[in-house]
Amino acid sequence: MSEDIYDLPHEECGLIGIWNQEDAAFDTYYGLHALQHRGQEGAGIACLLDSKINAHRDFGLVHEIFKDKESLIELKGSSSLGHVRYATSGTSDINNIQPLVFHFEDGDIAMAHNGNLVNAKSIKKELEQKGSIFQTTSDSEVIMHLVRRSEAGSFHDKLKEALCQVVGGYTYLFLTNNELIGACDPNGFRPLIVGQLPEKGYVMASESTALDQIGAQYLFDVEPGQIVYINNQGIEKEYYTEKRQQAICSMEFIYFARPDSNIHGVNVHTARKKSGRILAEEAPCPEADIVIGVPNSSLSAASGYAEAAGIPYEMGLIKNQYTARTFIQPTQELRERGVRMKLSAVRKVVEGKKIVMVDDSIVRGTTSKRIVRLLKEAGAAEVHVRIASPALKHPCFYGIDISNTQELIAANHTQEEITAIIGADSLAYLSEDGLISAINLSSSAPYQGLCMAYFNGDYPTALHDFEEKYKLELAKIVKN
Amino acid sequence: MSEDIYDLPHEECGLIGIWNQEDAAFDTYYGLHALQHRGQEGAGIACLLDSKINAHRDFGLVHEIFKDKESLIELKGSSSLGHVRYATSGTSDINNIQPLVFHFEDGDIAMAHNGNLVNAKSIKKELEQKGSIFQTTSDSEVIMHLVRRSEAGSFHDKLKEALCQVVGGYTYLFLTNNELIGACDPNGFRPLIVGQLPEKGYVMASESTALDQIGAQYLFDVEPGQIVYINNQGIEKEYYTEKRQQAICSMEFIYFARPDSNIHGVNVHTARKKSGRILAEEAPCPEADIVIGVPNSSLSAASGYAEAAGIPYEMGLIKNQYTARTFIQPTQELRERGVRMKLSAVRKVVEGKKIVMVDDSIVRGTTSKRIVRLLKEAGAAEVHVRIASPALKHPCFYGIDISNTQELIAANHTQEEITAIIGADSLAYLSEDGLISAINLSSSAPYQGLCMAYFNGDYPTALHDFEEKYKLELAKIVKN
Amino acid sequence: MSEDIYDLPHEECGLIGIWNQEDAAFDTYYGLHALQHRGQEGAGIACLLDSKINAHRDFGLVHEIFKDKESLIELKGSSSLGHVRYATSGTSDINNIQPLVFHFEDGDIAMAHNGNLVNAKSIKKELEQKGSIFQTTSDSEVIMHLVRRSEAGSFHDKLKEALCQVVGGYTYLFLTNNELIGACDPNGFRPLIVGQLPEKGYVMASESTALDQIGAQYLFDVEPGQIVYINNQGIEKEYYTEKRQQAICSMEFIYFARPDSNIHGVNVHTARKKSGRILAEEAPCPEADIVIGVPNSSLSAASGYAEAAGIPYEMGLIKNQYTARTFIQPTQELRERGVRMKLSAVRKVVEGKKIVMVDDSIVRGTTSKRIVRLLKEAGAAEVHVRIASPALKHPCFYGIDISNTQELIAANHTQEEITAIIGADSLAYLSEDGLISAINLSSSAPYQGLCMAYFNGDYPTALHDFEEKYKLELAKIVKN
Amino acid sequence: MSEDIYDLPHEECGLIGIWNQEDAAFDTYYGLHALQHRGQEGAGIACLLDSKINAHRDFGLVHEIFKDKESLIELKGSSSLGHVRYATSGTSDINNIQPLVFHFEDGDIAMAHNGNLVNAKSIKKELEQKGSIFQTTSDSEVIMHLVRRSEAGSFHDKLKEALCQVVGGYTYLFLTNNELIGACDPNGFRPLIVGQLPEKGYVMASESTALDQIGAQYLFDVEPGQIVYINNQGIEKEYYTEKRQQAICSMEFIYFARPDSNIHGVNVHTARKKSGRILAEEAPCPEADIVIGVPNSSLSAASGYAEAAGIPYEMGLIKNQYTARTFIQPTQELRERGVRMKLSAVRKVVEGKKIVMVDDSIVRGTTSKRIVRLLKEAGAAEVHVRIASPALKHPCFYGIDISNTQELIAANHTQEEITAIIGADSLAYLSEDGLISAINLSSSAPYQGLCMAYFNGDYPTALHDFEEKYKLELAKIVKN
Repeated sequence: MSEDIYDLPHEECGLIGIWNQEDAAFDTYYGLHALQHRGQEGAGIACLLDSKINAHRDFGLVHEIFKDKESLIELKGSSSLGHVRYATSGTSDINNIQPLVFHFEDGDIAMAHNGNLVNAKSIKKELEQKGSIFQTTSDSEVIMHLVRRSEAGSFHDKLKEALCQVVGGYTYLFLTNNELIGACDPNGFRPLIVGQLPEKGYVMASESTALDQIGAQYLFDVEPGQIVYINNQGIEKEYYTEKRQQAICSMEFIYFARPDSNIHGVNVHTARKKSGRILAEEAPCPEADIVIGVPNSSLSAASGYAEAAGIPYEMGLIKNQYTARTFIQPTQELRERGVRMKLSAVRKVVEGKKIVMVDDSIVRGTTSKRIVRLLKEAGAAEVHVRIASPALKHPCFYGIDISNTQELIAANHTQEEITAIIGADSLAYLSEDGLISAINLSSSAPYQGLCMAYFNGDYPTALHDFEEKYKLELAKIVKN
Repeated sequence: MSEDIYDLPHEECGLIGIWNQEDAAFDTYYGLHALQHRGQEGAGIACLLDSKINAHRDFGLVHEIFKDKESLIELKGSSSLGHVRYATSGTSDINNIQPLVFHFEDGDIAMAHNGNLVNAKSIKKELEQKGSIFQTTSDSEVIMHLVRRSEAGSFHDKLKEALCQVVGGYTYLFLTNNELIGACDPNGFRPLIVGQLPEKGYVMASESTALDQIGAQYLFDVEPGQIVYINNQGIEKEYYTEKRQQAICSMEFIYFARPDSNIHGVNVHTARKKSGRILAEEAPCPEADIVIGVPNSSLSAASGYAEAAGIPYEMGLIKNQYTARTFIQPTQELRERGVRMKLSAVRKVVEGKKIVMVDDSIVRGTTSKRIVRLLKEAGAAEVHVRIASPALKHPCFYGIDISNTQELIAANHTQEEITAIIGADSLAYLSEDGLISAINLSSSAPYQGLCMAYFNGDYPTALHDFEEKYKLELAKIVKN
Repeated sequence: MSEDIYDLPHEECGLIGIWNQEDAAFDTYYGLHALQHRGQEGAGIACLLDSKINAHRDFGLVHEIFKDKESLIELKGSSSLGHVRYATSGTSDINNIQPLVFHFEDGDIAMAHNGNLVNAKSIKKELEQKGSIFQTTSDSEVIMHLVRRSEAGSFHDKLKEALCQVVGGYTYLFLTNNELIGACDPNGFRPLIVGQLPEKGYVMASESTALDQIGAQYLFDVEPGQIVYINNQGIEKEYYTEKRQQAICSMEFIYFARPDSNIHGVNVHTARKKSGRILAEEAPCPEADIVIGVPNSSLSAASGYAEAAGIPYEMGLIKNQYTARTFIQPTQELRERGVRMKLSAVRKVVEGKKIVMVDDSIVRGTTSKRIVRLLKEAGAAEVHVRIASPALKHPCFYGIDISNTQELIAANHTQEEITAIIGADSLAYLSEDGLISAINLSSSAPYQGLCMAYFNGDYPTALHDFEEKYKLELAKIVKN
Repeated sequence: MSEDIYDLPHEECGLIGIWNQEDAAFDTYYGLHALQHRGQEGAGIACLLDSKINAHRDFGLVHEIFKDKESLIELKGSSSLGHVRYATSGTSDINNIQPLVFHFEDGDIAMAHNGNLVNAKSIKKELEQKGSIFQTTSDSEVIMHLVRRSEAGSFHDKLKEALCQVVGGYTYLFLTNNELIGACDPNGFRPLIVGQLPEKGYVMASESTALDQIGAQYLFDVEPGQIVYINNQGIEKEYYTEKRQQAICSMEFIYFARPDSNIHGVNVHTARKKSGRILAEEAPCPEADIVIGVPNSSLSAASGYAEAAGIPYEMGLIKNQYTARTFIQPTQELRERGVRMKLSAVRKVVEGKKIVMVDDSIVRGTTSKRIVRLLKEAGAAEVHVRIASPALKHPCFYGIDISNTQELIAANHTQEEITAIIGADSLAYLSEDGLISAINLSSSAPYQGLCMAYFNGDYPTALHDFEEKYKLELAKIVKN
C-alpha cells in the first residue's frame, strides 16, 4: 500500500508539545513538518504567552497554513502545542482541527489528541443529558468535559480521574498555564516520545523524527497508562492506572511511522526490512528475476526481501514527487490514470521480467489491482505480490478508520480470490509470527506488546459503543 | 546532489505538444505533471480552437495553476502545447512563462522552448536596432522574430532559415493553425520524443515518461538538426542543416531526467545504476559497512554501487515527501535545518557505520557538506562520498544555469581540498570514460554522442556571446 | 460620522432566518447582502436538511465568503439562518462568527445573536463552576447553555426560562429541526422584523430592507419581550415576560440602519431628514452659503437641514465608492490621508464658502477634525458643524462597543473645547427632545420608546457586570 | 445610468505619472485609488530605479493588487507610472494590463495609455508585414513600434513623429530613464492634468481628484496636440502638430469623471448640477411630488433639477455600498434581483408619489427599465424619467466601447417607444445645446470644445479602420 494512494480514510494524527524554548512556535512548526505524514487535512499551533493561549489552526499542510515568518512570530511564547490531522472523508469542520483551546475563567488550556475512543459516544450522551455542550464532532473534546466536571481536588487528580473513564487508543498533550502534560492510554496504542532540547527545554512528540528535526535528544517513550508532567521544575512521571499492558498499534511499524523513527527502541525502517527478510523465507519466489517495492513505504521491506532471497532489488516503480491531493481527476474511462499520476512503471526495468512486488498491506485491493496492471502494461511477464504484513480482516477502533469490515478485501475473499481480483500471478502475506518477530518489541505482553487486532480480532480492550456493530459485521463475514 | 536541495538555479524546462486528440488540454495537463521535475517556477497550456490559440500560464506547479476541470475545459481544442519552467533566481516575469502565444494578423502561433542560445543577445541587439520590440527577457522569443523577418517563401522555409541562425541548445515546439512542429538543435543537446496516441493523434514531449503518462506509444527520438511536422496528413521529418552531430547533455542522464524515461533508447535508471557499478570498480571502499544514496536522484547509482561492491544497500537518508519550495526559513544560526527539513538520517541505520554515500554530483559543495554532517551527527563512523559523475569544472551554456565557474567547487579546489571542505573521510568521482560507458549511447560522435563540456570544457559549439566571459573565468581558475 | 470611517469598534450584527423556502441559502445570501452594513468582520449561513444543520462561516464580506453558486448549492435545505458580524478590534476568532451550530444527540440547533448581555460574564462564571465548557469568547453562547441546563419540560419552556435569565440587548434567532424561532429582549433594544415570502415561507430579519431584497412582504416588528415561533403550522407569538417596555436603540435610527429600512413603522431616512429639519430650527446658521452632509449616513439629515433653513444643499464631500477595509495605511506623517482615501472635498463647491457640515454624531472627534481640515484645505471659508443627534456622553452596554467613556470626546470636553479641537467655526447638537420628536415612535414608554442612555445615562436595565466599571468612569468624568 | 450597473462594457482608463518624489509607488497607489472609477479590470504600477523599470500589474482593484506595504516597498524609485483599466467583456489578457514596460538594450521605457485609436489596426498590419511582433491585443502598443522604427534623431523627435501617425483619442504617459512625458491627442478627447507635488516633484494624471488625493497643486490641463516633458530641469511643453482643435469627450462630464474633478477649469459636479437645472427648464414635470436621482452619478443632476423646479429633492433610491463585481447571480426568473442587489427603493419615500427620476444617460435601456419597475413595485404612482444628456445614437471610437449602434436603444427606437419599453410615464432628454451650456467650456471650437458625436454623429476625426463598419450600421438604422 503506497501511503498516499491507499483508498481508505484514516484518522491518524501527529502531536508535538514544547516547554521552555524561546519562540517555541518555530520548533513546533519544524516538528510538525516532520510529522506531516501523520495527517494532511489540517494543522495548528497553540502558544502560551503570559497565561494566555493563542492558536492558529486551518485546513491544509503545515507550510500552507503557516506561510511566512510573521505567522509564527505572531504566536509568541516559549511553550506550545502542535497538531497535524489526517484527511478524513465527508464533512470537514474547522472546529475539529486541533489543538483545541479552552478559555476558562480560571485559565486557558490547550489540548491535542491522537487516537480514538471506544466509549466517547456514551460518555458524550451522558454529559449532554447533564447540560454539557460539545462544539466538535470529534472524540477529543470528551476528556476535557470529564476533567471539568470532576470533583477531584487538583487539576492532576481531575485529569487522572478523567483518563480512567475514557477507553480506547490515545495519546494526549495538554498545555496549561504552568505545565506541559502528556498521557498515553493503558495499552499504549499510540507512540509518544519525550526529548531534551539543546538549551534547557523539553519536547514531547508522536515520533522520534520530530525530535531529530529540531535537534532534541531522545529521553524516553511514554509508557502505557503513564502520565508525564513537564514544568519549570523538570520532568515527573507517574502511572494513573494499574490496569496497563502494552499493545502498540502494529500499523505504526507497518506503514504509519517514518522509517527514521524509533518506537520503543525499534527503528521502523529496520523492522520493515526485517519483515521483508522473513517474508522472503515464508513466501519465496525463486523463479523471480527482480524484487521491487511500492514506493515509498514498502521500499524497506522490498530491499529486505531481495537481500534475503538473493534476487536483485530494482527500481521498477517511480513515485512522482509532485503528487498533490488536489489533482484534477481524469474521466471515468481513464480512472486508472489516478494511479499513473502518482506511480510510473520503469518499462526498461520490468519489461519481460518475473517480478516480486512487495507492498506493506492490502486494504480494499483496488490500488493493488491498478499497480499490477501498470506493471503488466509496461511489459512485466509475471507479478508476484508479497505483502509484508498479515491479511487485514478486522476493523480498528483505536485511531485508524478501518471501521467497516466490508471494505476489507481479506475479510470477504479467500487468498485465491484476491489473487485473481488484483490480477497477480501469486499472492502471499507475512505470518503473524513473522510480523511479531520482525518488529521484536521487548515486551512480555501478548504478541510481544503489539496490537494485532486487525489481523486476528483480538482486541486489547472492550469495544463498548462498537461492540454491537462489530458482532453484526463479524456474523456477516463468517457467513461468507 | 538531491534534486531539490541543490543550491544553484537551473534553466531546464519541459515541453509537450499534442496534435489531434479530443480535449487536448487534459492530456497536456497530465503530461506536464509527468514533466514537472523539469521545471517548477511556472507552467502553461496553449490550445488551438477554430484557428485561434488561447493559453493559460502562471507561476506555480501544474496542479496549482490548473485547479479544477473548468480551467482545462476552458482551453478547448484538439491540439495544444504545454510547458513547465524551472525556478530561476532573481526577477521573475510572467511574460517569460511559456508557451508564448503570438497573435498575428495572418494567424496565431504558440511556441515553447527548452534550452539556451549562445548568440541570442547579439541577434536581439541587431533586431532591436532594426525596430523590433522584445517583450520577454528570455532567449526564446528571438527565433520568432527571425521567422517573421525572414524573406523566405513558406513558413517552413522561414522557420528553417531562422533555426540556422540561432546557436546553442534547444528543442522547440510550435503550434500553428495547421501543424505541430518540433525541432532539435544540430547537437541534440536536449531530448525530444515523438509518440502515437491511443486513438489517432500524436504527441511530442521532452521525456518518454510523459508518453507513458498519457498512454502514448513511443515512435522515435527527434535527432540533432531535425525538424518534425505533424499535421492531419501524418508525420514528416527532415534535416534543416548538414552540420549536425549528437552531443546530448550528459546531465539529462545524471540527474535531470526521470529514472523511468528512455533517451535515445537508454533507460535513465539503468544508466545511473550502471554508473554506480562502474564507480564501485573505479573507486572501491572495501572497508565500508553499508552503501546509501542521497534521495531521490542518487538511489539508482547507489544500488548499483552496492550490488557491484557486494556491500549492503541501506536506506540511511529519508526524504520528507512534503517538501515545499515555500518553507519558512530557519534563522541564520540554524541554517542547516534547511537540509533537515528535506532529508533525515536514519540514526539506527547509520550509527557506528562506515558509510559509502553515493551522490550524483557536487556543484557548490554546500549541500554535500550538510549531508555529511547530518550523517555524522546521527552517529556515522565514516562517510566516504562517491560521486556518480566526473567533477563539474566548466559552466554550461546550453540550458543549465551553471554559468559561473566560481560557484563550482571543483573548478576552484583540488579533490583533497573538497574532501576536507565537505567533511568526508574520502571522496571519489566517476571517470569520464566510466560515465560514457555507463550511458553507452550508440552514436559515433565524440564521447559516444554526449556533451561532456561541464567536465572537460570541450564545448560542441562556438560560444559566441559567452566566449569572452568564459575565457576570463578560465584564466582565473587556471591561475588558481 | 461617516459610517465606515468612524474610529471606534462596534458590535452590531445583522440576522436573517428563513422558513420553508426552496433553496433557502440563496435568499439568505441576498438578505445578508442587504444587511451587510450591520457587520463586515464575518458572516455565515446555516441550513437545515433532513434534520441536520450544515453551516459555512468565515471572515470577510458576504460575497467574499460565498464566492460562487456552488458554495450556496452545497447548503441545501429550505430553512436557514444567516448572520453578519461587525469588525471588532483585537483578537478575532473564527469560533465567534455565527450562526453557531450545536450538534446534540437529540438534534441540531443553530442560533444567531444581535446585541450584548450585561450579565453574561457572571452567568458564564457560574456555569463553568458547574462544569460547562464555553467554546467562544462571545456572549452569544450563554443562552444555549442555560437552555440545555434548564429542567423545564419542553424546548419552548426551556428557552423562555433561559431568556428570563439573561439581561441586556438582544435579538436571537434559533433554527431547530422543526421551527424557526425569534426572540427580542424585554426592552426591544434591537429590531427584528417578520415577513411573508412570495410563495409560502416566512422570513425574520434585523431590518426591513432584507425583506425588500428578497421580495418578502412586511408582517410585523417583533415586540419587546416577545418570542415568535414559525413552523409548518404558521406563526405563533407570545410574551415570555411581563416586565417589558420598549427602549429601542436610538443609534439604529441615527446611523446603524439603512435609510430604506422601517423600524416600528418609522422610515429611517425620513427620521433622519426630520432630525435635520429640527436641527436647523434649533441650531440655525443663517450666514451659511451651503449645507453639506458627510456621506453617506448624514446625507438625509443634511438635506433636511438645507430644506428647513432655505440654504442650498450641496455635494461638498464625495465618498470614494471603492473604499476597502484593507488599504495600505499611509505613514505617520500623512495620517490624514486615511480620510482622503475615503472622502474628497469638492473644491469648486466649497471654495470660499461658509459651510454647514451636517454629521450624524461625534464619537472621538478625530474624524470630525480631519473632515473639517479637509474642507478648509479645499478653501472653505467657514465650517459650522451641526450634529443630528445629542452629544454622546455615556457608554452603551447593549450591543454597541462604546464601553469606555474616556474615548467619548463629549464625555470629557465642553462643547467649546470640542469646537476648538475639531477646528470648526461653530458646533451644535440636536437636542434630546429634537431627536425624540424626529423619530416620533408611537410608544408610551419613556422617551417615546427610545433608549437615550448614550446621551443621558438613563439605562433601561440594571448594569450587572458593568455596574462597578461604569460608576468608576462616571466618577472620573464628573471630576473633570 | 448608475455607473456600476450599466450594461455595456467600457474601455476607459486612468493614468498617473510621478516624477521626483521619494517612494513614488506610494503616491501612485493613492492616486490610482482616486482614479479607480475609471477602470476596475486591472491595474499596475511601474517604477524607475537606477535606470531599470520594474512593474507589478494584475487583474483586480488597486487595493487587491497591492495588498500590503511590502508590495509597494518592492517598487523602489522616485519616478513612476500607474494605470487602471476598465472591465472589458470577453477574453482578458494580463498582457493588456498596463503600464507596458519595454526593456530595450538602450534603456527601459514604460508607457500607459487612455483612449482608443481609429487607425491602429492598419498600422499594426503594416508593421507586421515588416516583421514587427505585437504582444498585446490592445491598441496601446502601436505607438511604441512607431517610435522604435522611426528614423528621426532624438527620442523626442521619434515620439512626435509617431504621435502624428496615430489617429484617435489618447493620452499617453511615458517614463524613460530621464523623463516623464505626457501627450494628448490633437482633439484632446481625454483629460490629462499636471500638478506640483508638495516637495519638489511633479504629477500628471487623468483627473484632478488624483492630485487632491496626494496633496498636489494644480498647474495646468494638457492641451490638444500638446506634449509635456518633465525632468530634473523642470517642465517643458510644446505642440507636436498644428492641426488641433479641442473636442473633449462630453461623457467625461456626464458620467465618467468624479464629481470633485475639474476638467479645463470646469467642475464636474457643478456641470452636472447645471445640466439638471437646464433639464428642469427644458423638460418640466410640474405635477411631480419629488425628484430623485439614480445614485451615485446622477445625484448632482437630480439636485439641480429639484432646485430649479422647486420640487423636493428626495432620497428615493439607496445604493448598497457593498456592491461587488463578483456577486452570485440570481437565477433567470429572478433576474431583476441584479438591480436590487445594487439599488433599493425607499418605500416610505416613493409610495404614492409622482416621481421625477433623473439619470445621466440611457444606453440599452435594460437598467432604466429595471429601476422604473423597482420604484413602481415600491408604490410609486408615476415615474417620469429625465435624462441629463441627449439621446445616445452613435458609437464612440475614441475610448468608450459603444461601438455597436444596435445596442443603443435610442438608435433604434423613437422616444415614445423607449418610454413604453422602460415603463416610464414620461421620458425626456436634455438638448444638445443644454448640455453644451451646462458644461460651458471656454473653447472656440465647435460645440464649445466638446465631442458630441454619440449624440449627433459629428466625429472630429476621420474614422479610418471603422469607416466602413459605421456606414453600414448607419444604413441599417436609417432604414429602421
